[in-house]
Amino acid sequence: MRQSILFTNTLKESPKDEQSKNAELLIRGGFINKEMAGVYSYLPLGLRVLNKINNIIREEMNNIGGQEVHLTVLQNPELWKQTNRWSDEIIDNWFKTSLKNGTELGMGFTHEEPLTQLMKSYVHSYKDLPAYVYQIQTKFRNEKRSKSGIMRCREFLMKDLYSFSRSQEEHDKFYEKSKDAYLKIFERCGLGNNTYITFASGGVFSKYSHEFQTLTDSGEDTIFVDKTKKIAVNKEVYTDEVLTSLGLDKKELVEEKAVEVGNIFTLGTKYSEPLGLKFTDENGKENSVIMGSYGIGPGRLMGTVAEIFNDESGLLWPEAVAPFAVHLVSLCKDEADIKKADDIYNNLIAEGVEVLYDDRIDASAGAKFADSDLIGIPKRIIVSTKTLAEESVEVKQRNEKESVLVKIHSL
Amino acid sequence: MRQSILFTNTLKESPKDEQSKNAELLIRGGFINKEMAGVYSYLPLGLRVLNKINNIIREEMNNIGGQEVHLTVLQNPELWKQTNRWSDEIIDNWFKTSLKNGTELGMGFTHEEPLTQLMKSYVHSYKDLPAYVYQIQTKFRNEKRSKSGIMRCREFLMKDLYSFSRSQEEHDKFYEKSKDAYLKIFERCGLGNNTYITFASGGVFSKYSHEFQTLTDSGEDTIFVDKTKKIAVNKEVYTDEVLTSLGLDKKELVEEKAVEVGNIFTLGTKYSEPLGLKFTDENGKENSVIMGSYGIGPGRLMGTVAEIFNDESGLLWPEAVAPFAVHLVSLCKDEADIKKADDIYNNLIAEGVEVLYDDRIDASAGAKFADSDLIGIPKRIIVSTKTLAEESVEVKQRNEKESVLVKIHSL
Repeated sequence: MRQSILFTNTLKESPKDEQSKNAELLIRGGFINKEMAGVYSYLPLGLRVLNKINNIIREEMNNIGGQEVHLTVLQNPELWKQTNRWSDEIIDNWFKTSLKNGTELGMGFTHEEPLTQLMKSYVHSYKDLPAYVYQIQTKFRNEKRSKSGIMRCREFLMKDLYSFSRSQEEHDKFYEKSKDAYLKIFERCGLGNNTYITFASGGVFSKYSHEFQTLTDSGEDTIFVDKTKKIAVNKEVYTDEVLTSLGLDKKELVEEKAVEVGNIFTLGTKYSEPLGLKFTDENGKENSVIMGSYGIGPGRLMGTVAEIFNDESGLLWPEAVAPFAVHLVSLCKDEADIKKADDIYNNLIAEGVEVLYDDRIDASAGAKFADSDLIGIPKRIIVSTKTLAEESVEVKQRNEKESVLVKIHSL
Repeated sequence: MRQSILFTNTLKESPKDEQSKNAELLIRGGFINKEMAGVYSYLPLGLRVLNKINNIIREEMNNIGGQEVHLTVLQNPELWKQTNRWSDEIIDNWFKTSLKNGTELGMGFTHEEPLTQLMKSYVHSYKDLPAYVYQIQTKFRNEKRSKSGIMRCREFLMKDLYSFSRSQEEHDKFYEKSKDAYLKIFERCGLGNNTYITFASGGVFSKYSHEFQTLTDSGEDTIFVDKTKKIAVNKEVYTDEVLTSLGLDKKELVEEKAVEVGNIFTLGTKYSEPLGLKFTDENGKENSVIMGSYGIGPGRLMGTVAEIFNDESGLLWPEAVAPFAVHLVSLCKDEADIKKADDIYNNLIAEGVEVLYDDRIDASAGAKFADSDLIGIPKRIIVSTKTLAEESVEVKQRNEKESVLVKIHSL
C-alpha cells in the first residue's frame, strides 16, 4: 500500500487522556482511534494486525477440530434467567437495551447460554458428539473503569470456543489439546517467552481453571511464576495447600505483574443441565453434555504485543502480526529515481511481499524515519539517489541499529 | 469438510414462526439459527456463504480505492446531537443502552457521524483527499416489525463505505465508479440479471439517490422497471415529472416487487459541516468536505440469493457464493469402497477444491440426496459400489436433472 494514499497519518502528540502505553503508541501510529473510554475503532494498519492475529487463532482452532460460527450480540433474557445470569446483581457488567415494545434485551458478554440452546437442535445421540464450536465476535462488558487501552475494553473482539463432550475423559483430552493450541497461538504472535500457563480458581466442576498470563508491568493480575517449570499460580489461589498439590516450591516462585491473554475453563454440566442439553449414550441412557469454554481476546492480544514490543521511538511488531512485512521508504525526489523506487515496490508486490511504500514526496527523510520507527514494521528498505547510484537499497531491521547495503537484483 | 463431523444437520420440519422463504430454507439447511425475530446466528455453512459474499464485496471496494476499517457499535450521543440524529423522535430505530454511571449510549445503525469525526484527525489539506473508507460491521436497527428472515434484521452485517471528496466533480466521478463496482458485486453473487439501478429520493444535495433493487415477490419495495434500459424508478419518486426528466416512457415500465440490496447516496456537506470536517484547498481557502455513503447488507444479499435460487427440494447456490463447490456424496458401506471414497475426497482437497463430504455411514441414500438438494451445493459427485465398479463417479449439477458418469482419474 502506498503511504501517500493511506488515509491515516502518524500523530505527533500523545493523546491527552491515555494512561496506557499500548493505546498511546497505537493511536499515535494510526492503528486505532478512541471513540470513548474502553471503546476503540480499528484503522487500516490496526485492522491488518488484528486480522493477522485472528487468522493465527482461526488456524489453531481449526487444527483442533473447531467449527466456526457467528452468534449474535442481542440476547434473549429468558435464556439467561434459566441459568440465573440475567440479574444485574449477579452479573454486574451487562449492557442492556430494549425493543420498541419495551422488551428488555442483553448485549452478549459471553455466549454459553445461546450456544447451549442452539446445540439442542443438533445434539441428540452420542453420535452427534463431541463438537467444538467457536466464533470471533464482538462482546460487550459494562466495566466500571477502563483505562488499559485495548487491553480491557467495554466493546471488544473475542474468540470463544465451547467444547461439548460425552464424558469427563473426552473433555479432559480436548482440554489438554487446547492448552497446546493456545501456547502455539501465543508463540506465533511473539509472546511465547513471556507467557505462562497459570493455575487459577476453578468452579464446581474442576479444582482449577487455566489462564495464559503474559508478563508485563501494565498487567492487572499478580501471578507467581516458576520460570524453570514454565508454569505460574494466580494470586487468587496462591496458598501453601495449592503449591503443595502442584508440586511447586515457594522459593522457586517469583511474583510478577501479568495480563491474562487467554483462559480455559471446565464447565461440566453448569449450562447443559439447566438448559437441557442432553444426549442418549450407547446404552440408551440420557446424560447432560460435558462442556468447556476457551477464550482469547484478539484485541487484548494485540494490545499486549504493543505493550511489550516497543522502544522510545515506537512499536516493534513481531513478523507474524506486523501490519506489513516490509516498509519501503523512498527518499527519491527526481522522476527517474521515483520510477526506480516504484519498480522495486511493484516487484516486491508481484512476489507476494506485503509492503507499505512511503512514496510521499513532501515529507523529509527525518519525518519518514520517525514515522517508520513509530509504525514498527520489522524490515525497512530505504531507497535514495545515493543507494540507487550503487544499484542498491539500504536494509535495516527495526530492532537493529545498523543497516546493510543490498543490491536491488538480489532483493 | 466431513459431514459426519459438521455439527449441524438438516432439520426435517419447517420452523413454525417463519413467514419468509429464505429463513425457512436457511434454517432447515443448517445455515442460520433464529435467536429472536430479526436476529439470526450464522452456523458453519451459513458463515461460509456470508464470508464469500463479504470477500466479493471487499475485493470490489478495494478495487475502487476503499480502505478497510472497523468502527464501533457503541456510540457517543454528543456526536449525534451535533447532527440532530440522537433524538428518538427524529431517528425512530435506535437501540440505546447506558454505562454503569448512567451515561446513555447508542448502538450504531450507521456510521456517518463517528467516521466524519475520526477523519478530522487526518484530513487537513487538499493533499489528504480524496479518501474512501469502508467497513463490514454489525449494525443495529430497532425495527418495529421483522419478518423477512435475514432480508430485514434488527442486528445485521453491513458494508458501509463513505467517500470524502474535494469537489462535486471529484465526488461525481467516484459515485459513478461505485455504481459499476456495485453492479459487479451483484453480478458476481448471481443476481446480475435480476438487479436494477433504481432512482430513489435524494436529499438536499442531490435530486436522487440510487438503489440496487433485486426483483422478487418477497421484496418490500415497489419499483417500475424499464427492462430494455436496465433501470428502474422507486414508487416513492414515480411521477410524470421524474419520468420525463429521466427520459423514461410510462408504457415501457413494469411494476415489480423488489428488495433493496444496496444503495448509494450523495451526502454533500450534510455531516461534514455540522461536525467541522474541513480542508484547506490549493488557494488556502477552507472548505467543507463533500461526502457520499454507499451501503450493502451482506446478510440481506445472502437472504435474497436464497429467496431467488431455490426449488421445491431446497437451495441452488450460485457457484461464487456456495458454501462448498462440490458435495461429494458417498453411498459406500464396505471398507475398501470407503477407502476409495476417502481418496477421492483427499485428492479433491489437495487440488484446492472446496468439498463437503457426506461420509455418514448410517444415513440412507435417499436421506443423503434430500440433504444434498436442501443444502444446494452446485455440483454433486456420487460415489458408490456401483460407480466404483466402473472406476467412475456420478456427477450432477444441482440445477440439472441428469447425471453423467465420469472416470475417477479424469475428475
